[in-house]
Amino acid sequence: MSSTTGTRGESVTPANPAYDTVADPTDVTALLERGRALSAPVLRAAVDRLAPPMDTVAAYHFGWIDAQGRPAEGDGGKAVRPALALLSAEAAGAPAEAGIPGAVAVELVHNFSLLHDDLMDGDEQRRHRDTVWKVHGPAQAILVGDALFALANEVLLELGTVEAGRAARRLTTASRKLIDGQAQDISYEHRERVTVEECLEMEGNKTGALLACAVSIGAVLGGADDRTADTLEAYGYHLGLAFQAVDDLLGIWGDPESTGKQTWSDLRQRKKSLPVVAALAAGGPASERLGELLADDAKSSDFDSFSEEEFAARAALIEEAGGREWTAQEARRQHAVAIEALHGVDMPERVRAQLTELADFVVVRKR
Amino acid sequence: MSSTTGTRGESVTPANPAYDTVADPTDVTALLERGRALSAPVLRAAVDRLAPPMDTVAAYHFGWIDAQGRPAEGDGGKAVRPALALLSAEAAGAPAEAGIPGAVAVELVHNFSLLHDDLMDGDEQRRHRDTVWKVHGPAQAILVGDALFALANEVLLELGTVEAGRAARRLTTASRKLIDGQAQDISYEHRERVTVEECLEMEGNKTGALLACAVSIGAVLGGADDRTADTLEAYGYHLGLAFQAVDDLLGIWGDPESTGKQTWSDLRQRKKSLPVVAALAAGGPASERLGELLADDAKSSDFDSFSEEEFAARAALIEEAGGREWTAQEARRQHAVAIEALHGVDMPERVRAQLTELADFVVVRKR
Repeated sequence: MSSTTGTRGESVTPANPAYDTVADPTDVTALLERGRALSAPVLRAAVDRLAPPMDTVAAYHFGWIDAQGRPAEGDGGKAVRPALALLSAEAAGAPAEAGIPGAVAVELVHNFSLLHDDLMDGDEQRRHRDTVWKVHGPAQAILVGDALFALANEVLLELGTVEAGRAARRLTTASRKLIDGQAQDISYEHRERVTVEECLEMEGNKTGALLACAVSIGAVLGGADDRTADTLEAYGYHLGLAFQAVDDLLGIWGDPESTGKQTWSDLRQRKKSLPVVAALAAGGPASERLGELLADDAKSSDFDSFSEEEFAARAALIEEAGGREWTAQEARRQHAVAIEALHGVDMPERVRAQLTELADFVVVRKR
Repeated sequence: MSSTTGTRGESVTPANPAYDTVADPTDVTALLERGRALSAPVLRAAVDRLAPPMDTVAAYHFGWIDAQGRPAEGDGGKAVRPALALLSAEAAGAPAEAGIPGAVAVELVHNFSLLHDDLMDGDEQRRHRDTVWKVHGPAQAILVGDALFALANEVLLELGTVEAGRAARRLTTASRKLIDGQAQDISYEHRERVTVEECLEMEGNKTGALLACAVSIGAVLGGADDRTADTLEAYGYHLGLAFQAVDDLLGIWGDPESTGKQTWSDLRQRKKSLPVVAALAAGGPASERLGELLADDAKSSDFDSFSEEEFAARAALIEEAGGREWTAQEARRQHAVAIEALHGVDMPERVRAQLTELADFVVVRKR
């Protein structure tokens, strides 16, 4: 259906054009906007169910209000996951709308993990704003995270269908992997060496699993069989690894204006992200010098007061050792595997083209 | 089936007699032991699925190992919830075993909430041992709590049946109430006055909802309809309120040797528990004096170094104002409502008698 004419020829120009099928497969902005427009009201309605003060804390987290409770025009994130969940329903031949509860449930789980991870990691900023634990205290960050996690299951299970039960099971599996990934992430920060394989496994858990769920959950709700859902998950998992490789690049070399994070953000947090572990594994003088520096940093009591120049020196060594280029290649490699997986499922060609465009978007983004 | 002879006459004396139907309805100890014996191996197997170090942290929380990782003979709690979940299945005419995944899921949710609540409340002791956040740090308490919550849904949803989906939905509803109750509990600690009604609502959320779920989830897994499950929930909800009223009495006047908590535990934490709010609402000289003292305490910077005598004086005023007696009566009143609800469901008379005995046990316990 076009954006102005219905199947029977009458004008159906909707109040919000995003509610239509996105006909142009190259228009990623429209796809992301549709995901946001269709899922946002349902997400808000779900969050509104929370008892005070959790509803307010959650609204702050999502950027709907500011710290003083005034309405805000928040940066709700890139909305890749909701866009994927709607395309997922369409991949199974169902209308995009069938994927909405899945889109909302995945966003709730994603935001549950952000609330808890920011507290565990001591991150003070997210999306250009103070994190929830900074503004509302640790207890509210824990509590509202828990509430969003429960709400995610509620949104699915209250549908009361067999498909919803299958969708909830996939979401639970993905949530467990997300938690495994955070456990690995925390433990790696205290270790001197992490292998590239360990890092990829952690990133697959932390990012791949939920993206995989986003791109299968709509199909499951739309009646797809397990084989179709599994193949869509393979696309999502590798897309997630590509996404995370790009995130790791942005976590070191990203523009703080775009990312909303501090300069050298991941280095400040001693994250053993892909560029770091790849540089350490590469061998050679720059790799060895980096290894010595990071080993000293781990014992240093001044680490928290390091200057910009000290982090810049570490970033330069990572680049010199080849960690930056390896990670960029890894993003492209995972992107290619994701695209390849798309050919294992029968789906409308338009949807396949859109999933391909979304994958392209993920690897070239700047935030 | 008796404990020594099978239906076809051969000896079937099991290795663990707890695996049998508990024939004597007055034997609460055997009922609790059966709940523990049948659910513990499944609970352990579920927790074993957690990735390191979460499996170890969880094993410490459950009391299976000590802080050094050595096997321990832990105090796993009273195991009222597993006993209820198994009886719940029997109430629906199913074998007790049908309730096991429900018993395990409810225990996982209960322990998720303990891990997070202990951290939020700053509680340093639970079941005579240091709490997880004290031993393993706040991040592990958050993470392992999250993992147990996810695992609870996994244990149910992996059954893949329509009944399991319905059970998971009830568990999710109960979990949301549990979280609402913790939010209320936290907010009440910062308020000067809490009404008896607000306190009862909070306790219904924090304790009633999960006990209600325990006593309906086995029936749902055993194929009971919603009306039967709802009526069992009514029993469980009021049993939960009776349970909590007794807990509130033990939280002030309990013997630390039995409870594993500090003397005047709830007073030290400024908990607005039932005896406190009832005493404040009672009026009269003791009530007024108590109100003045607690208002001063809220502003006092020495509160953390108060002596035993200072807490004892507050406890005496609560008793003098009638808060202790009112709470004891409330436990008996909720107990009676719970028993009354049991008559709204058709169930084997033995099971009804056992649910009655369990309710009696809950209101006379010392820990």
